[in-house]
Amino acid sequence: MLEIKKVGVKMKVIFHIDDLDRWQMAHGNVKNLLEQDTTVEVIVVVNGPAITGYLDKNNLSFIQMNGVKFHACNNAMNSHQITATMLPKEVEVVPAGVYDIVKLQSAGFSYIKP
Amino acid sequence: MLEIKKVGVKMKVIFHIDDLDRWQMAHGNVKNLLEQDTTVEVIVVVNGPAITGYLDKNNLSFIQMNGVKFHACNNAMNSHQITATMLPKEVEVVPAGVYDIVKLQSAGFSYIKP
Amino acid sequence: MLEIKKVGVKMKVIFHIDDLDRWQMAHGNVKNLLEQDTTVEVIVVVNGPAITGYLDKNNLSFIQMNGVKFHACNNAMNSHQITATMLPKEVEVVPAGVYDIVKLQSAGFSYIKP
Repeated sequence: MLEIKKVGVKMKVIFHIDDLDRWQMAHGNVKNLLEQDTTVEVIVVVNGPAITGYLDKNNLSFIQMNGVKFHACNNAMNSHQITATMLPKEVEVVPAGVYDIVKLQSAGFSYIKP
Repeated sequence: MLEIKKVGVKMKVIFHIDDLDRWQMAHGNVKNLLEQDTTVEVIVVVNGPAITGYLDKNNLSFIQMNGVKFHACNNAMNSHQITATMLPKEVEVVPAGVYDIVKLQSAGFSYIKP
Repeated sequence: MLEIKKVGVKMKVIFHIDDLDRWQMAHGNVKNLLEQDTTVEVIVVVNGPAITGYLDKNNLSFIQMNGVKFHACNNAMNSHQITATMLPKEVEVVPAGVYDIVKLQSAGFSYIKP
């Protein structure tokens, strides 16, 4: 087994979901990641048609996972008639998912597209 | 609504399209991004089968969007019998799309795969 | 043709494969990249259902490509009843593919999702 040494600074990563059928893969990815290292900062950014996944009860255990933040793209919410009150309370609305991703990467976040 | 503060340096991002059916998503992504912040430098890098999207008149308004640069992978052009003269004049040909992406990320560009 | 100047430091990039049907695209990507510049460090990280691609003889010439490293996610191996002895000898097993990707990006690797 190859083990790469952790770097000194806190690691942080965005998972980007824009296809509805990628929620499950993203869930497994984040679970596997945090099993290795609970100190990694994880933000899941959801935009596009994937946004309706926030209304799916099957995703609730993922959305409520300890130490994981969830962002919802307001443009995608508007396109799908989703208002903030319809979202699980753990979710934070951002004006534009892709702008959020650019800002987070510029702030040192890695990027994974499951 | 969560608002992350912009960092001081100019932000820049690549959108990578390699599937033909992702042009529309990428278009919406870039539009939403620039509505938030017109100072972000945006380069759309197209390779693989997505390359034929440059010949589709439906993509022309995207390709001509103000402040967005478009790169075309020469390998993909060769695979699809596309010559530089067939491309919209806004498009710049690069020898290899993936090499372009590596160089741009090394130069500080964020990466988004719609 | 647009040519972006190479930066001084050695460039390095991860290709991330999690869908089985993206092996071929990734193969073409890496081939095209190394034709431009053999000094780029390339690691292909495979997780999810794509893991079974390591057992496909059609991928062997890619896996044995000079100067390219291949990582296999141990979680994905477990999910698909794949043991280390079943993998081509060139492949290194990592505990979790996504953790590997976060660590490599934190260490300066670019990221491409074919």
